[in-house]
Amino acid sequence: MTSLTSSQTSSEGVLELATRARAAGRGLALANRATKDAALEAMAQALLTHAETLLAANAEDVRRAEEGGTPAGIVDRLRLTHDRLAAMAQGLRDVAGLPDPVGEVVRGSTLANGLEMRQLRVPFGVVGMIYEARPNVTADAAGICLKSGNAVLLRGSSSAAASNAAIVEVLRDAVAAAGLDPDVVQMVPADSRETVRAMMRARGHIDVLIPRGGAGLIRSVVEESTVPVIETGVGNCHVYVDRAADLDKALAVVLNAKTHRPSVCNAAETLLVHADLAATFLPRVVSALQEAGVSVHGDAATAALPGVVPATEEDWDTEYLSLDMAVAVVGSIDGALDHVRRHSSGHTEAILTEDQGAARRFVAEVDAAAVLVNASTRFTDGGELGFGAEIGISTQKLHARGPMGLPEMTSTKYVVTGDGHVR
Amino acid sequence: MTSLTSSQTSSEGVLELATRARAAGRGLALANRATKDAALEAMAQALLTHAETLLAANAEDVRRAEEGGTPAGIVDRLRLTHDRLAAMAQGLRDVAGLPDPVGEVVRGSTLANGLEMRQLRVPFGVVGMIYEARPNVTADAAGICLKSGNAVLLRGSSSAAASNAAIVEVLRDAVAAAGLDPDVVQMVPADSRETVRAMMRARGHIDVLIPRGGAGLIRSVVEESTVPVIETGVGNCHVYVDRAADLDKALAVVLNAKTHRPSVCNAAETLLVHADLAATFLPRVVSALQEAGVSVHGDAATAALPGVVPATEEDWDTEYLSLDMAVAVVGSIDGALDHVRRHSSGHTEAILTEDQGAARRFVAEVDAAAVLVNASTRFTDGGELGFGAEIGISTQKLHARGPMGLPEMTSTKYVVTGDGHVR
Repeated sequence: MTSLTSSQTSSEGVLELATRARAAGRGLALANRATKDAALEAMAQALLTHAETLLAANAEDVRRAEEGGTPAGIVDRLRLTHDRLAAMAQGLRDVAGLPDPVGEVVRGSTLANGLEMRQLRVPFGVVGMIYEARPNVTADAAGICLKSGNAVLLRGSSSAAASNAAIVEVLRDAVAAAGLDPDVVQMVPADSRETVRAMMRARGHIDVLIPRGGAGLIRSVVEESTVPVIETGVGNCHVYVDRAADLDKALAVVLNAKTHRPSVCNAAETLLVHADLAATFLPRVVSALQEAGVSVHGDAATAALPGVVPATEEDWDTEYLSLDMAVAVVGSIDGALDHVRRHSSGHTEAILTEDQGAARRFVAEVDAAAVLVNASTRFTDGGELGFGAEIGISTQKLHARGPMGLPEMTSTKYVVTGDGHVR
Repeated sequence: MTSLTSSQTSSEGVLELATRARAAGRGLALANRATKDAALEAMAQALLTHAETLLAANAEDVRRAEEGGTPAGIVDRLRLTHDRLAAMAQGLRDVAGLPDPVGEVVRGSTLANGLEMRQLRVPFGVVGMIYEARPNVTADAAGICLKSGNAVLLRGSSSAAASNAAIVEVLRDAVAAAGLDPDVVQMVPADSRETVRAMMRARGHIDVLIPRGGAGLIRSVVEESTVPVIETGVGNCHVYVDRAADLDKALAVVLNAKTHRPSVCNAAETLLVHADLAATFLPRVVSALQEAGVSVHGDAATAALPGVVPATEEDWDTEYLSLDMAVAVVGSIDGALDHVRRHSSGHTEAILTEDQGAARRFVAEVDAAAVLVNASTRFTDGGELGFGAEIGISTQKLHARGPMGLPEMTSTKYVVTGDGHVR
C-alpha cells in the first residue's frame, strides 16, 4: 500500500515536472543563439560566484559518503573543488562557443514542381538524464541541453543529492536572470528509485532518456523504459596488435589505451596479440603493462609469463575500469575479429598494423561506434574528435553512435513551402 | 502450459532466424553496390517470371479473406494483380537506381594532431519489419533493406500469409542466384502473435524493429518492445486556413489533402478555419467537401451548416483514413496552434496563408515531422520529396523523422586513422 502510494506520488510528481519542462521548452526552442549563449555565460558565472555554497553542499555529500564507507575512489569522483567548479564553468563557456545546432539546414532542395523543401534541426523537447555520482554531469548536461534547445530533467544519484540540488538552484537562478524560463532545467528527486521508474514510463512527456553511469543502470533503463533511450558508455574496448604492427608504436598505444585514464569507457580492457608475436612482443608488452601497475589476466599462452593471472571466461566480457587488462593470443586477424565479435560492447576497437589489407578488413568488419587504426582507444571522445562538449558516448545504432555532441541532441523537421501545390 | 510451450518454440524459432540473418547480414554489409543492384534486378525479374505462382498464392489469401467476411476495401488491399506485381518489380528497380548509402562519408576531417577522422554510414545489421495486410510491403521492405545492407526478418499479417510466403521464396531464390546469402531475406511465421512478441524481445539479435500498420499495432510494438523501434505512420494531419489565405488555393489544397487518397497517413483529417472566414470560406469549403463525398464532422459553428454532423471530442483525435473530415473554427493562429498541439500525431501539419508572419510562426511552433506552407499534406512522402523509395514515415523524434529512405536505414561508424597516436 505504502509502496503503491509512493509510486503514484513519484509518478505524478515526475509528470508535473515534465509538463512544466514541456511548456518551458517551447519558449527555449524558439530562443535565438545570443539569448542561449548569454544564459550559458550567466550559468558559468553563477557557479563561480556561488562556489562557497556549492562546496558546502558538496561537503555534506562527501561526509555522508565517507561515513557510509564509500571507497575513496568514488568519494573522489563525488568531491567538488574550486578547480573542478572552474572546469564546470569553463565547460559551459565552451558550449556557448559552439555553433547553435537548432535551425541548421541538414538537407534542402527545390523540387521539380517548385516546392521548396528543407530539413531543419529542431530540439527534441524534453530530455531526461539519469546519471550516477559525479556532480559535474549536472552542469554539463544542463548546458548541452540548453544550447540544443531542450528542457532537461536531471535525475542524479542520491549520493550527490545535496550537490546536485545546490548546482541546479544556482543554474536556474542564472537561467531566469538571463530571461529564460528556469523550468528548462529541473531536478528530479533522488530520494527513491520510483522517480527513475516514473521517468521511464513518461512516454509522450519525456522525448528521450539518456542514462549515464554503470552497466547495471544503463541495462535497466534500456530494458524497462517505454520512453526512447540513447544507450551510452559501456566500453569493453579491444586493442589488436597485428603481425604487421610497428611494435614500438603498438607498445605506446597499448600503454596509453590502458593506463592514461583507466576509469573511463574508452580505456582499453583487452589486448589481442597475433600469434607470430607471442614470443617477442607479448612478453615485452606484458612486462611493460606490469611495470605500469597493470594486473594482466592472460589466456593460456599469456599466463605462462611471470606474474600473469590466468583469465576466466568472464574476463573477456569485463569492463574493468581499473588497472587490469585481459590479454589473449589470436592465430590470425580472423581470430581477432571473431574475439571482438563475441565480446565487444560496440564502443571502440583498435588495430595496430602497417598492413593496409589488415586495416581495411578490421575497419570494414568490426561493428562498433568507433574503429581506430594505429591510434589509442582514448581518442573516442567528443572533445578529441573536435565536436566540443559531449553528453555521452552512444553505443547503440539508432539515432546517434559514438560521441554525442550538440547536433546529436536534436531531431529534425521537414519544412515544405509551396504556392497552393496539390498532387 | 500449451501457451508457454508455443511461446518458447516461437521465441527459439525467431532467435534462430535472427541468428541466420546476423550471419548473412555480415556478408551483405560488405557487398558492393554492383552486387546489390544485380540482386535487386534479379528480384524484380523473379516477381515477373513467377507471376502465376504468386497470383495463385494470393488467390488463396483473397478467398480466405472473402469467406471470413473481410470488408471489400481490405480485400482489395490484399489482392495482387499483374499490374501490382509489375509495380512491385519496378519498385525494386527504382531502389537499384538509388545511390548506395553504405560507406557514405557523413562527416570527416583531419584533426590538429594529424588523426584522420571519418564518420561513415554502415548498415544496422538485422531489421525486423512487422506489418499488416498489403503484400507489396514484403517486396518493398526486402529491397530497401538489401540495398541498405541490412538483413531483414519480415513478419506480415496472417491474412497475407500465403502471398508473403510465395513472394519471399521467389525473392530468396533470386538473391541466392545473384550470389548473396538468401538468409538476408527471411519470413517470420504469422501463425501466432507469439512470433511478434519474440521479435520484440530479441534485443541484441534484431537491431531495429519497424512496425507498419494500424495505430493499435504500432502502439503495442512501441510499448512492449525492448528492441529499439522506429514508430511509423499514424497521421492525424491538420490543414489550417488562415485569415490571410488565398481562398482559391486553400480550397484546392483542402480538397486534395482530404480526397486525393483518403486511406493513407498523409491525408488530412481535420480542417481548422480562421474565425474571420466563418461566414465566407467555411460554407464554401464544407459544401465542396460534401460534393466530393466527404462527411463533415463539425464544431458548433460548422455544425450549423447543412448536412454537417456535430463532432464529438473523439473526432479531433481520429485518424479517419476515410472520406470523413473534422472541421473547427479557431479564433486566431494561436487557437490553431493550440488545437494542433493538443491533437497532432506529429506527422504532417499544413497552413494556408499569404501572411509571412503567420507562416513563420506556424513553421517554428508546430512540432511535427513535416510542416507544409501552402501545399497539400499529401507531399509528405519519400517519392514526392525526391528521396525515392521509403520504408515508412517516422513520427518519432529519435533517429529518423518523416519519410525514411535508404540513408535512414543506416547507422554510422567513426573510423579514425593515425600513426601510433596516443593522448
